[in-house]
Amino acid sequence: MAEDLSQLKNWQKKIHEIIFGYETTGGKLFDVALLLVILASVLTVMLESVQEVNRSYRVQLKIIEWIFTFLFSVEYIARIACSPKPLRYVLSFMGIIDLLSLIPTYLGIFIDGTHALSVIRAIRLIRVFRILKLTHFMGGAEQLGNALWYSRHKIIVFLGSVLCIVVIIGTLMYIIEGGKNGFTSIPKSIYWSIVTITTVGYGDIAPQTLLGQSLASALMIIGYAILAVPTGIVTSEIMQSERRLNSVTCSNCGSNDLPKRSNYCLNCGENLLRNNSQN
Amino acid sequence: MAEDLSQLKNWQKKIHEIIFGYETTGGKLFDVALLLVILASVLTVMLESVQEVNRSYRVQLKIIEWIFTFLFSVEYIARIACSPKPLRYVLSFMGIIDLLSLIPTYLGIFIDGTHALSVIRAIRLIRVFRILKLTHFMGGAEQLGNALWYSRHKIIVFLGSVLCIVVIIGTLMYIIEGGKNGFTSIPKSIYWSIVTITTVGYGDIAPQTLLGQSLASALMIIGYAILAVPTGIVTSEIMQSERRLNSVTCSNCGSNDLPKRSNYCLNCGENLLRNNSQN
Amino acid sequence: MAEDLSQLKNWQKKIHEIIFGYETTGGKLFDVALLLVILASVLTVMLESVQEVNRSYRVQLKIIEWIFTFLFSVEYIARIACSPKPLRYVLSFMGIIDLLSLIPTYLGIFIDGTHALSVIRAIRLIRVFRILKLTHFMGGAEQLGNALWYSRHKIIVFLGSVLCIVVIIGTLMYIIEGGKNGFTSIPKSIYWSIVTITTVGYGDIAPQTLLGQSLASALMIIGYAILAVPTGIVTSEIMQSERRLNSVTCSNCGSNDLPKRSNYCLNCGENLLRNNSQN
Amino acid sequence: MAEDLSQLKNWQKKIHEIIFGYETTGGKLFDVALLLVILASVLTVMLESVQEVNRSYRVQLKIIEWIFTFLFSVEYIARIACSPKPLRYVLSFMGIIDLLSLIPTYLGIFIDGTHALSVIRAIRLIRVFRILKLTHFMGGAEQLGNALWYSRHKIIVFLGSVLCIVVIIGTLMYIIEGGKNGFTSIPKSIYWSIVTITTVGYGDIAPQTLLGQSLASALMIIGYAILAVPTGIVTSEIMQSERRLNSVTCSNCGSNDLPKRSNYCLNCGENLLRNNSQN
Repeated sequence: MAEDLSQLKNWQKKIHEIIFGYETTGGKLFDVALLLVILASVLTVMLESVQEVNRSYRVQLKIIEWIFTFLFSVEYIARIACSPKPLRYVLSFMGIIDLLSLIPTYLGIFIDGTHALSVIRAIRLIRVFRILKLTHFMGGAEQLGNALWYSRHKIIVFLGSVLCIVVIIGTLMYIIEGGKNGFTSIPKSIYWSIVTITTVGYGDIAPQTLLGQSLASALMIIGYAILAVPTGIVTSEIMQSERRLNSVTCSNCGSNDLPKRSNYCLNCGENLLRNNSQN
Repeated sequence: MAEDLSQLKNWQKKIHEIIFGYETTGGKLFDVALLLVILASVLTVMLESVQEVNRSYRVQLKIIEWIFTFLFSVEYIARIACSPKPLRYVLSFMGIIDLLSLIPTYLGIFIDGTHALSVIRAIRLIRVFRILKLTHFMGGAEQLGNALWYSRHKIIVFLGSVLCIVVIIGTLMYIIEGGKNGFTSIPKSIYWSIVTITTVGYGDIAPQTLLGQSLASALMIIGYAILAVPTGIVTSEIMQSERRLNSVTCSNCGSNDLPKRSNYCLNCGENLLRNNSQN
Repeated sequence: MAEDLSQLKNWQKKIHEIIFGYETTGGKLFDVALLLVILASVLTVMLESVQEVNRSYRVQLKIIEWIFTFLFSVEYIARIACSPKPLRYVLSFMGIIDLLSLIPTYLGIFIDGTHALSVIRAIRLIRVFRILKLTHFMGGAEQLGNALWYSRHKIIVFLGSVLCIVVIIGTLMYIIEGGKNGFTSIPKSIYWSIVTITTVGYGDIAPQTLLGQSLASALMIIGYAILAVPTGIVTSEIMQSERRLNSVTCSNCGSNDLPKRSNYCLNCGENLLRNNSQN
Repeated sequence: MAEDLSQLKNWQKKIHEIIFGYETTGGKLFDVALLLVILASVLTVMLESVQEVNRSYRVQLKIIEWIFTFLFSVEYIARIACSPKPLRYVLSFMGIIDLLSLIPTYLGIFIDGTHALSVIRAIRLIRVFRILKLTHFMGGAEQLGNALWYSRHKIIVFLGSVLCIVVIIGTLMYIIEGGKNGFTSIPKSIYWSIVTITTVGYGDIAPQTLLGQSLASALMIIGYAILAVPTGIVTSEIMQSERRLNSVTCSNCGSNDLPKRSNYCLNCGENLLRNNSQN
């Protein structure tokens, strides 16, 4: 939070400290309260969708939802008001989520049923990591994100292959089962292929002919073997990122993978302690 | 078992040796007998729940169950009586399990049906590791536990993301399928999301609309890719704990990951043999 | 693309540049256009199989499909015409796919229903990697391919074991369930075994007897443990290929696994920089 | 095959060479013929179980099965007759499988339906590895076997934990769902737990109450996380066995994990080349 707050007025600074900060008592209390309110509001929307509850407490739930939305709206305006660069907050990931979690309730006035979309405010719960000892979780999240990012090329190649397989096998099944037993169209057969290759297996569509069951068996064994590929990719990346965290790179010759506490570079003899202390 | 038994009376020492110990013949026999009784009592509770069996042998099963519960009660009192620090045993993990496996039968007198909970005594079977060559299994268990413990931050981040995904996609499906085809409420739709993303796929709830099936396909492919993440995390941790077991740390400069049989620290030249022999 | 184009006429060179090349603007535009046409033609075949759509737009879809097939035929002839070695293109992987994606439509005149097979042209979409930054994806694909290729012996051993298990357990289930509850023949019971061991679990066939459910439970736990094996194999290979990419081999003594930026071989002292610069 | 054949008569040696050997042309032809006969006989038993086939070709299939069984019986006797140590063959893994694949057909005369068990002869197909380039596959099989063997303690701890979880959650579900919705007894509820935690998910038994679905969701997420554990264990072991294969151990100081082509031990300076050439 290395933002320049000097251009803010005093009341803005105070609100900023409470809403955005999490070091002061006020900031911590605000965060805990916010989390409870978010949880309660998500639960309200969920309960509203349960018919038995909705029939008895329709009006009460509606009122509670509007109170929550009003609170979030005030919070959103306050966040804009006390930001040194309001636009930067509005366009940030959390800013967009904050806005998106407000819209559905207002939209619900005009279009029926859409207010349920306000469960998107569940994403706001990731603020919880600020209350918990932040850095550990951020480190974990960053490492996972990096592992997925570094392996993106392999994941795209993998997903492309899977898509080709499901399209072709889905079509074959459509021809083999002859449009019966649930395989009524190619898109539906492809849906069945995805359900099968991911080993979900609902069973609402299932081959009945001998040839269809043989092809399905082949697809399952392929899916079985293929399931190993993304796991291998991600595991490999996680372990490399782990190694990267536990090693240093020589600033002189560029050798990486040196043990973290090395005094001298194994390759060129550069004094690493001196360099590291400068960082 | 480095407990101080000197303050115990002679009869307490003898019972302690049999009940808690597993080096003497008496202790071993007691452990084997206990395991058989636990297995038999768990089987009794299971059989009681099978209607055909219960109709014919209701009274016999009830009597057998009460005999087992009486034996376990005696054992529990004996464990307390011969412990040098009774409270420490009562509050230990095994002590709590021992108590919890007694309560349901007694509770069954007052509240119907709860006595089935006494299958919790199955957990007592982990004493089996004491009879088998203990240390190997404890080492295995400890290593698995450590791997899960060290990766707790990443696992929490991962579970948090999964929860957000299932809440949002569950709500979307509720709106898309319009409360039909089993998606009768948001909680039920979230239940379906979890069933799908974990690739369980019961099929009691399954999307029927084209849009619903497309979203479900996306969720499955996400689940597929996401399944790789916890595997990667745990694999990485298991391999690191393996490495930690097979390496030594220099007591002088703190370099870790040194080969187990190193004579000198690769980094600072410290004589490791001398230090290790001191440990 | 180090092909010798000198023996081609000028018009052939020009077409070759557009159809096979992807460096010039014309070549790029052609590739993008081709991808869109392929996608559109696959979608057409899919839509044709949806009964509601087919009833209303049967003639239009047929016409569109024939236009696409005509375009692909022209493209196929053009590719042959402007290749320096036409036979090499025809027998290459992409050449065979290009031909296979044409045949089903023509075959559909004589044999009803087979034209749906033309979705095989979805495989042609892998040309998309040429438009995206090629080398990264090719590297990813090659690495995945290598990982699977190097572990082929282990994968065959693994699949052989799985096949033996499903054949034997399938037969046992056929005997246990006595030809009822869907286990009407051994092939069908084997199909159920595969559905179960791969954790797909449709539920269209499910054991009802106590013995059958016990055996099924055993099969599931086996499948659970066995699922770990291919993952382990592939992960291990991916990590080794990763290591191979990040290490150099000494040309003097054959030591491999040397850090990529090593100046001298750790084993024989060979100057690696000199050798690497010669490569 | 370092057996001492000197005590065999000439005709025994000749038969031994053909039946057990796979270096001579006769031995190879015998192996290929045997594999085809095994495959054919397994297929016969399968076909016999398909009602439509059995109705039309009952007698023919029975005759074919008896011919195959006669051939296998002759082969089994021949194997005993030409072994230098017949008892060792009879008690070896392959010897027991050879016998077990004969018994069911003979047993089928007395007990109806058991002859289907003769599909156990499918295991005999592992002789196929002798025809293919043997050593690679044996290496692969051995490595997989070792990986599973070395991690047995961890796998037992893991399976023990899973069993405790399914017993307890199965019982809880029996109480929660109140013996309805398929949860008619504790054993059946435990069966459901196993179906769920292994992500098979047939859907023949599925919770209907809100509390039951919540507990099921928890079980699925646990199963999801737990699935990572065996994968991690096996992957870790496969990678270690890979490393063991690619490293040498110093015969002087016992340092292992030395690069395969090392000339000198990194730790004690022992000349490894001299030692390795002696091995």
